[in-house]
Formats: sequence, structure tokens, C-alpha cells
Amino acid sequence: MGGDHGPPVTVAGVEIALERLSGREVRFQLHGDQAALEAQLARHPKLRSVVSVHHTDKVIGGEDKPAQALRRGKGSSLWNAVEAIRDGGADAAISGGNTGALMAISKLILRMAGGLDRPAIVSSWPTRRGVTAMLDVGANISSDAAQLVEFAIMGEAFYCAVHASPGQRVRVGLMNVGSEEQKGHDEVREANSILRDGGIELDYHGFVEGDDIAKGTVEVIVTDGFTGNVALKTGEGLARFFAAELREAMTSGPLSMAGAFLAQGALKRLRTRLEPPGGGPLLGLNGVVIKAHGGGTANSFADALKIAADLAASDYAAKAAANMQRLARALDAPAPASETVQ
Amino acid sequence: MGGDHGPPVTVAGVEIALERLSGREVRFQLHGDQAALEAQLARHPKLRSVVSVHHTDKVIGGEDKPAQALRRGKGSSLWNAVEAIRDGGADAAISGGNTGALMAISKLILRMAGGLDRPAIVSSWPTRRGVTAMLDVGANISSDAAQLVEFAIMGEAFYCAVHASPGQRVRVGLMNVGSEEQKGHDEVREANSILRDGGIELDYHGFVEGDDIAKGTVEVIVTDGFTGNVALKTGEGLARFFAAELREAMTSGPLSMAGAFLAQGALKRLRTRLEPPGGGPLLGLNGVVIKAHGGGTANSFADALKIAADLAASDYAAKAAANMQRLARALDAPAPASETVQ
Repeated sequence: MGGDHGPPVTVAGVEIALERLSGREVRFQLHGDQAALEAQLARHPKLRSVVSVHHTDKVIGGEDKPAQALRRGKGSSLWNAVEAIRDGGADAAISGGNTGALMAISKLILRMAGGLDRPAIVSSWPTRRGVTAMLDVGANISSDAAQLVEFAIMGEAFYCAVHASPGQRVRVGLMNVGSEEQKGHDEVREANSILRDGGIELDYHGFVEGDDIAKGTVEVIVTDGFTGNVALKTGEGLARFFAAELREAMTSGPLSMAGAFLAQGALKRLRTRLEPPGGGPLLGLNGVVIKAHGGGTANSFADALKIAADLAASDYAAKAAANMQRLARALDAPAPASETVQ
Repeated sequence: MGGDHGPPVTVAGVEIALERLSGREVRFQLHGDQAALEAQLARHPKLRSVVSVHHTDKVIGGEDKPAQALRRGKGSSLWNAVEAIRDGGADAAISGGNTGALMAISKLILRMAGGLDRPAIVSSWPTRRGVTAMLDVGANISSDAAQLVEFAIMGEAFYCAVHASPGQRVRVGLMNVGSEEQKGHDEVREANSILRDGGIELDYHGFVEGDDIAKGTVEVIVTDGFTGNVALKTGEGLARFFAAELREAMTSGPLSMAGAFLAQGALKRLRTRLEPPGGGPLLGLNGVVIKAHGGGTANSFADALKIAADLAASDYAAKAAANMQRLARALDAPAPASETVQ
């Protein structure tokens, strides 16, 4: 039911995802208003054999506070979707609705995975070289060094599960600034030393800056939720700006319009590249929960469903858990620098 | 001497700036290696009558730490350019060199303007509606509420001096995140209440998010130097990414190439829009100092020179000083909320 457009987009997205996941055994539960969902399913007859509808007329609004959602959300479509993971009926839940409510309800129902403190939302960006995943992009307001290291562990395991091709290097970078005077907050410098010397099995690259996102310098970029959210939304805003400028340029006169007509195939592919990422998993929970982009298209909702299926079928959780144990040992141990030969 | 390309770009930039500033009385001092500068001036004979060369063979390197620059920088081209402001020989200084060194030397020679704590670097972004200025983009690592309010005051005065057309509204927004759970750091919320109720004469809009930069929701966006630097570099990286993707799309086949040929005028204008901003002033000093983009073109260096000329000719300093006095009163006064009718 979630997102700016509700079932017309989400149900259409399920059909696209089904095509992309062909060859894999996949079933979809649709939680929400039966009449609204059935009306959309009538337009997508292919979905009949793989979809079940789970009626509820209770919906969490986009403006509801997380505390309200926890108190009054039981039995809502969002709640029921997450509960289906705990009860074994589903391997992943996905929602285009209220992010804060999704996070609070997921934490309550699924609990955090062993040793982890708070979820992080990860966002995947296209780059010239492939995909760069960045986290946290908004689940947390500020993060201490240990949390940043947790993000590195969760993000690397996510990247290996969803994006990496066999044998691909998955390097992790820590976001910092280019000011020559001081190199970053205390939290960032401390996280840097744990990642370098803490015995965690990661291909750690060191510090990166904002322009390394689009360059694809590393595969995973770690930052606090405030900075990550601003960077993500800055990028989304710029992508819309560039798309609008491109449209304007290509309709600015008869020559440009003729040019745009000839290049229409290439321009359409370019516009698809500029679309915001379809969804970001909430990492760190006992279960796969994906926040789909609220304003996304059926196509981007299908991207989010594909991520959900890939993550649920992977060994992501086991990989992250093993590194969390290494982190716990590193944090208990004496100062990491003294353990290694410098 | 500064920037990635040195005199060939900076001297060519002076010639472009001279054309853009036609009708205004403007003179340029070039500080640096006489032979290198004369060689470039030979290629730009129009500059002879408005340029003076001030030789020094001492240069501050891009990798020098600010403390080194302070200790050993005296007599360097950067130092001499800033000193020319204090000594009355120049109204503004501009450098494409080492940002940390420029800031440290400017603070030492010019001192901060009355009541201000630290400089802030402002960056101007093209938007669908005009220009949005954002600060701080990297002079500071973290900022408390009072500093964020200072940024608002400096940024608004800068915008009025350089970008605003007569009668234009200059609204100020405070960068925050869209997480529904908590709305921002303590610093951001405290700055918000001072800007709302502190008696400062600003057209204060409230919170904005990252995508409001390109939307042009407000004219001035205030944020801490860490977040602002990451957002700026994220945007620069994306602009290069989009330019590369556009180039690839328009050369991806014979039809696209024919289209690109027809639309070449429009595409060239679009590429110019994607160039990073030419320079960001260091606000808050007793004098106009501009950091030009180190990797910029002659054209973007000319943009930075134009900003320097506009700022030096404006009442920016007086306007900021008046609002700083209001801020001092607001911070001394009892809790602001009790002073106003809610």
C-alpha cells in the first residue's frame, strides 16, 4: 500500500520483478486493502499463480511518528508484512511507506542481529565502473566509531550478496573531508584505526571523499546517517536537475529537437541511468527488510524486489555475523595499534 | 601560481574576467614567478594596461600543512596576495592553491571580522530557478548552533551582494535530514530556534534537505563544514559522471552521433552548466578572499574573479556586521522563545 502511488505502482512492479527473477522460485504476498489490490491484479493476470493477497484495512500514514506506529500499527499492512518474516511465511519484506515506522516496527518484531546496535539503510548508486553502495543514508542521526565499523561490516556483506560478481574485490572506504587543516571528526579517525588494525576481514581502502561516490573508487562507502542522507538527497536532486536540463537543451530549437529524435534510444537509456535507486535494505535485522523509494516507478520498485530476493537467497547474515564477532574481539582487545607491527 | 594548471589557466582567466567586468574600473596584481607570468602575459597583450606582476619565487605547495604554511609561507605568492589587501594595495585576493594554507594565512593577516569565530567557505550552485549558495563547504569540521547562525548571516549578506537581483527575496534554509524518527542533531535544532526567534533580520525558511539544493527551494543553505563538503564533492562527482554518461550516450551509434551533431550548440551549453562552480569566498574575514577551484578552467577562474569584484564593491561587510550585532544580543538575551508571541 506504501509509496506515493500505492498498488498501481507496486503491483506493476511485482510483474516486472517476476520477469527479472525468471528461473527462480519466488512467491509474493501482498498485504493491504483487498479490493484495491484485486483491482490491480485484474490488470496483471500473469501474477495470479505467484501472488497471495492478505487483507487489512489498517494503513500507517506517511506522517505518523515511529512511536505512534509502534503503538497503533499492529495489524497494518506494513506490520503484517514484517511479521510474515518472523512467522516463517516470508523471506523478505518490502515497503515504499513510512521509513521511520518501517524501521521501528522491524526492530520490534525482528530484533537486531547478534551484537548489532541499530539498523542502517544502504543505497546503491550507479557509477562509471559499476555500483557503489553507501550506508547509512538515514536510519541514524549520528554514529560513533563502533557503529561506523558495524556499517562497514554490514555494507561489505550486503555488497558481496547483492552486487559483487564472482571474484570481484569489494573495497570499503570511510567518508571524510578534503580540508587540509584537520582530517575529520574523532569518530571517523577512530573508525579508521579499527578498520585498519582491528583484525576485521575487510578490504579496507581508507578515507574517501564525496566525489568518490560517482567515481566508483570503492564498492562500499561508510558514513554517518546525517551526512549519508544529505549526500543521497543531494544526488537525487541533481539527477532530476540534470534530467530537466537535458530535456530543456534537447527541445531548445529545431536542430536540437531533430538531434534528440535521432538520439532518442540513447537518451532514453541515459534517463534510466539517472533514476534514483529503487530501494535500500535496512541492514542489521534478523531478516531482510527493504525500504523502496516512496516516489519510485514500477521499474524501481522491481529493482527493490530483486535486491530483496538476492539478499534473502544469500549468505549475507552469516558473513556479517562472523565479522561482528571479530569486531567484538577487536573492541575488547587492547588498543589495536599495539597488536600489529607498524 | 595556484591550481592544478597554474599561470596558463589563471592568466587566461584574467582576460575573460576583464571582458565580463567591462565598464568597471578594475586592476589585477599577479603574484608569483615573473618569468612564468610574463610568458603568459605575452599571449594576452590586452592585459598589459591593467595588470602588474609582483615577483616571488616562493610557492606554497598543495600538500603543505596549514601550520607549515604559517611558519614558512611569508613572502610566497599566496601570502603576498593576501597581504596586499591588508596593505591597501588590493580589494580582494584570489587563489586556486592550497585551501588550508589560504585560510590560515588569511586569518593571520586579515583577522576575523567583528564577533565572528571562524571563516566559512561558500559555494554557489546553479539550480532550475537561479543560484543557491551553500555554506560551510569545508572550512570547518563541525559547527555548534551559534556558528551555524553565523553562517546564515554571512551567507545571506554574500548572496545579497553577489547573486540577488534588486528586490529578490533571499531565503535561508538549514540543512537537515528526512528521517521521521528524530529531526536532526541538537546543534541543528538549536540553530533553528535562534534563526526563528532570535531577532536576526533574515528571511528564514526553516529546514531543507539535500534535494533542495538543486531544486532552488531557498537561496542560501546553511550546514556544517563536514556535511557541506561531502555534499559539494558528491555533486561535483555526479556532474562529471553525468557529463561522461552523456558523452557516451551521444557517441553510442551512428544515429546518436548524428543527433549530437545537430544538437551540438545545446549540448555545449549543457556541458557548461555541469561545470563545477568557479570559486568560493572565505567569508567572515576583514577582506575579500576567494578560493578558486583548483582543477577549474580559465572560464571558471574568471567566474571566481567576478565574484571577488562583486563582493569587494558591495556593502556585504556592513550588512553582516549589523546582523552579527543582532546575533550577539540574541545570544546574551534570555531564552528567545519567551521574547516573542507564539
